[in-house]
Amino acid sequence: MSDKLIIFDTTLRDGEQSPGASMTRDEKLRIARQLERLRVDVIEAGFAASSNGDFAAVKAIADAVRESTVCSLARANDRDISRAAEALSGAARARIHTFIATSALHMEKKLRMTPEQVLEQSRQAVRFARNLCADVEFSAEDGYRSDPDFLCRVVEVAIAEGATTINIPDTVGYAIPELYGAFIRLLRERVPNSDKAIWSVHCHNDLGMAVANSLAGVKMGGARQVECTINGLGERAGNCSLEEIVMAVKTRRDYFGLDVGVDPSQIVPASRMVSQTTGFVVQPNKAVVGANAFAHASGIHQDGVLKARDTYEIMRAEDVGWAANKIVLGKLSGRNAFKQRLQELGITMESEAEINAAFARFKDLADRKSEVFDEDILALVSDESVTAEREHYRLLALSQRSEMGERPHAAVTFAIGEAEVQAEADGNGPVDASLKAIESRVQSGAELMLYSVNAITSGSTESQGEVTVRLQHGGRVVNGVGADPDIVVASAKAYLAALNKLHSNVERVAAQG
Amino acid sequence: MSDKLIIFDTTLRDGEQSPGASMTRDEKLRIARQLERLRVDVIEAGFAASSNGDFAAVKAIADAVRESTVCSLARANDRDISRAAEALSGAARARIHTFIATSALHMEKKLRMTPEQVLEQSRQAVRFARNLCADVEFSAEDGYRSDPDFLCRVVEVAIAEGATTINIPDTVGYAIPELYGAFIRLLRERVPNSDKAIWSVHCHNDLGMAVANSLAGVKMGGARQVECTINGLGERAGNCSLEEIVMAVKTRRDYFGLDVGVDPSQIVPASRMVSQTTGFVVQPNKAVVGANAFAHASGIHQDGVLKARDTYEIMRAEDVGWAANKIVLGKLSGRNAFKQRLQELGITMESEAEINAAFARFKDLADRKSEVFDEDILALVSDESVTAEREHYRLLALSQRSEMGERPHAAVTFAIGEAEVQAEADGNGPVDASLKAIESRVQSGAELMLYSVNAITSGSTESQGEVTVRLQHGGRVVNGVGADPDIVVASAKAYLAALNKLHSNVERVAAQG
Repeated sequence: MSDKLIIFDTTLRDGEQSPGASMTRDEKLRIARQLERLRVDVIEAGFAASSNGDFAAVKAIADAVRESTVCSLARANDRDISRAAEALSGAARARIHTFIATSALHMEKKLRMTPEQVLEQSRQAVRFARNLCADVEFSAEDGYRSDPDFLCRVVEVAIAEGATTINIPDTVGYAIPELYGAFIRLLRERVPNSDKAIWSVHCHNDLGMAVANSLAGVKMGGARQVECTINGLGERAGNCSLEEIVMAVKTRRDYFGLDVGVDPSQIVPASRMVSQTTGFVVQPNKAVVGANAFAHASGIHQDGVLKARDTYEIMRAEDVGWAANKIVLGKLSGRNAFKQRLQELGITMESEAEINAAFARFKDLADRKSEVFDEDILALVSDESVTAEREHYRLLALSQRSEMGERPHAAVTFAIGEAEVQAEADGNGPVDASLKAIESRVQSGAELMLYSVNAITSGSTESQGEVTVRLQHGGRVVNGVGADPDIVVASAKAYLAALNKLHSNVERVAAQG
Repeated sequence: MSDKLIIFDTTLRDGEQSPGASMTRDEKLRIARQLERLRVDVIEAGFAASSNGDFAAVKAIADAVRESTVCSLARANDRDISRAAEALSGAARARIHTFIATSALHMEKKLRMTPEQVLEQSRQAVRFARNLCADVEFSAEDGYRSDPDFLCRVVEVAIAEGATTINIPDTVGYAIPELYGAFIRLLRERVPNSDKAIWSVHCHNDLGMAVANSLAGVKMGGARQVECTINGLGERAGNCSLEEIVMAVKTRRDYFGLDVGVDPSQIVPASRMVSQTTGFVVQPNKAVVGANAFAHASGIHQDGVLKARDTYEIMRAEDVGWAANKIVLGKLSGRNAFKQRLQELGITMESEAEINAAFARFKDLADRKSEVFDEDILALVSDESVTAEREHYRLLALSQRSEMGERPHAAVTFAIGEAEVQAEADGNGPVDASLKAIESRVQSGAELMLYSVNAITSGSTESQGEVTVRLQHGGRVVNGVGADPDIVVASAKAYLAALNKLHSNVERVAAQG
């Protein structure tokens, strides 16, 4: 009998904490459905107590997902834990994930608590959570840098109070595989009731070793849950990459001897969805999901690949969901074909009105672009104009011109709430002119942190441009994404999308790494 | 006394083998100078025998670099090794790096040689190389998947013939830290003359563990050279990242106890230069060099960082060369200030005519963009119009317009050789229209594989757009990069730059991973 490795995805919680990666409830729900299709064991849907928006997202996901366990983070206090339980009440399988820092540095500088206070609060929190939910995970924040004697006492108490999973994060990405694996093993050997819980690893990638550290925690340490994110999304250098963990365990089954429930053919679709939704690009030389991950340039390699595929390939691109783009729809496709494709892509629209709005946009796109790919549809439904709520800022019309040697000019018409405004501006380029025209009316004062464009599909110059704009204002960082075959229009949409996110001035508490 | 870890950079050889990452001689020379400033121990400058272009690049780097050892790859035959020695003849310190595959799979399927033939060829190659160069590295391609008994015999022979470095690549990225470390240790224990050479590791990142595998080869295996690339550039999922290796060894000196000669403050400038030159983006959640690597979003983390920096940060951003963008030059800056800044950036122009051309472009840019940053200058000197040779395709003028609801239109004037041509076209967007206008005259038949844009500097909508266009034609993949404050102009430049690379129809042999 082979062991099972539990895949705990925290794209929607720890991943979303990346500056600029915040997502709307609808976006989170769409990704959660894809995670369910990917068959991850646990989806950490958010941190319910941190804001009303997070609460609503956790609740929506708990109500919608049936196969995966849905989890909410909660600090080690009754209010956070109650809110988590409330948000999760509709889940088929629910988990409350409560945490507190256990390293001397964090206890002293951040919590300003004594070790005994932390121990007692851990006891109370797990006890309280366990009364509300049978599945309770306890995390010792900055666990890897904690004193092992103290950490053993905390973990023993958490297990005694009924915690079913014990997670030991390397919060700052400081670990080395050999040391982290040995640390998990030491804890499991020394905590008397360690066999009553499943042990979990949660690693950050600051030194580029999150995957190797996690797997050492599994192989050497005996952990049976890995916490990870799609594309390694996460604060700073990100979290452990789900796709790398899954493919390492599958490809090196000879060494790990573990089963994973994840369906790898859903990895690339999940990667694209997360990248498109957050605007966080995946670099071409990213393992498994990078555009080049399965390509070979060198003459010798190509020769080798032709002669025997396994001379240079240890995985098959099609196994992880890389397939040639298929033309799924065109201008002759009807509403039913469109609706069916939405379902196949896992996109659930809340109302007929929403489907109609999306279909209208699809027809508009198909008029301008002969081949409509899955990625185009994903971009289309991400578009703010399709979502149920009416956004504050909406693009209505744009015209621009540029000529080398003269100053580019743009005229933009857009809605601010119920009002329609027009603005014109010059700029260094047509994008600059368009954004300046918008800004001349909005006067957000936001600082542009990042501007990037990716073609949504390759193989044609007719591809849509997907623009990501990152704005910073008053300590908040937001991303706006806009797609259009016209890059200047896509840029204006992205800028307005980011302004909408700044406008919905959500305050929230965030969480451990 | 603490051990020294040798940093062997192969950005210009194995990194450049990525589809689309090919660089011109001038680009390679500029990066080599930055690598020297970074104080890497060895620069693998190319594979001299693979093409005349590669030979010229290796020779130019060998002639220019004084501090780092300059290395050329060579297959295990006399012709390749002679060409390498010839290209390296002007080097202050030269190394010949010869390789042959030793795994059963590669010997049978790719080389179609018996193990005895491979052993004999290794002997002859190292002997021949050693007569031409005192510093000879021998690599056993696909070494990690080779039979250890056979590999020990090959390595023993290579050392006996005078190889001073023995490299054991994980060519396909299949290793696990524990197993790879043990493999290197086993070889070092079993090869009788193993102490006569420095052992080296060369790992690929297909399962996301290249850094951890390399460091296990060092810590457990006793290797004292790591082969790596800036940004982890390389085929498929790339090579081991130089920046992660260096910062892991420095940050965890308590564990590794090793010295590295690299100056970490040059890491981010090197990362930017490689990314700008190749058009390969660095994802925001990339360790050390990603835009988010040192950022914190979550309230708790920010609070923690304020209270004590080391609660969440194990490295300091400024140590690896992250600094606020400085306004270095403006429209009032003169030729001397510009020339001095070029020198400070490590950019050496070959002639006064080139400096004049670059300065003219700088003045043009400064007229349109009030603040000129280091990144702008790097983009400017990368621009084809500044390089010594006259390119085949050159942009002369462009005008375009778009208006929502109407079909965008572009008119482009460009040079093909000595002829000036004009073309107009409609398109889905102004970029599409511009590229279609160019293509209507050039009729390259090339397929657009990738289109992306990044703002060169952040903090302002006046930033230049840097466009990367990747074209495929007749089995070749090339990247073109173009920069301009006007994104449509930048796109046309990038497209013409890619066409120029396709036009210079270089044939070459490529190499091991």
